Amino acid sequence: MEPIIRAGETYPYAMDMTVDQARRMWLDVTEAAYVAEDDNGQLLGTYYIKPNQPTLGAHVANCGYMVAEQARGRGVATAMCEHSQEEALRLGYRAMQFNLVVETNEASVHLWKKMGFDVVGRLPGAFNHAKFGFVDAFIMYKTLVRKD
Amino acid sequence: MEPIIRAGETYPYAMDMTVDQARRMWLDVTEAAYVAEDDNGQLLGTYYIKPNQPTLGAHVANCGYMVAEQARGRGVATAMCEHSQEEALRLGYRAMQFNLVVETNEASVHLWKKMGFDVVGRLPGAFNHAKFGFVDAFIMYKTLVRKD
Repeated sequence: MEPIIRAGETYPYAMDMTVDQARRMWLDVTEAAYVAEDDNGQLLGTYYIKPNQPTLGAHVANCGYMVAEQARGRGVATAMCEHSQEEALRLGYRAMQFNLVVETNEASVHLWKKMGFDVVGRLPGAFNHAKFGFVDAFIMYKTLVRKD
Repeated sequence: MEPIIRAGETYPYAMDMTVDQARRMWLDVTEAAYVAEDDNGQLLGTYYIKPNQPTLGAHVANCGYMVAEQARGRGVATAMCEHSQEEALRLGYRAMQFNLVVETNEASVHLWKKMGFDVVGRLPGAFNHAKFGFVDAFIMYKTLVRKD
């Protein structure tokens, strides 16, 4: 997770975040967190699920995903996003919302669209990108439907 | 605040929330909270300001407003929203975002539009309304500009 946080290009977390702070935001304030491993137990990525709002909005899940640098381009984000939708349904969620998909993070925007998420909103200048300064961010949303 | 929370029609908070929980969500996890009073010190309403996201999204403010039942129709929400925009600028924010404006709460949607907020997104079924069940909610956003 560290290179992603230090880069300040995709998540809003403080770029100088400590391990304890990272642990708290990924594990303690979420409902569940998962890791993706290869057959040798090598860590490929991680994601969390949590309610996006309190009680009367708690049927909408929010997730965050991070893929290890050495595991890029192997479909890890796709696999985690598919897994997260199944887990979200299992946990009782009815929809999934991403609150701040940075516009310049084209790979993620493209991937979430491909996985059935709609861009339901654009937030002007809502993300302070470490390289580009204030850039727009998208809100993406998908109503979850059980496959079986 | 209690009648608004117990009604479950406009805010996602648990309808059986305790005073301690209400205090925490309105005062402890926010950056600042304010009250509106009339000339006799009668409480008319309250609002909070907090960053809508962590560090790299912390230049966007989130606010919540509640008007006392006996003070409706007197421009209290308008006055608080104007005040909150000035306060937000003073605190260094550059924009303001409402994450869950319930579609059936037409008075609020109308008022925020009138005050220059744009509906930048619609969230299908994102609010579990106590009377109507799952209803849509809007994301509303305004870039703040200093008046002077």
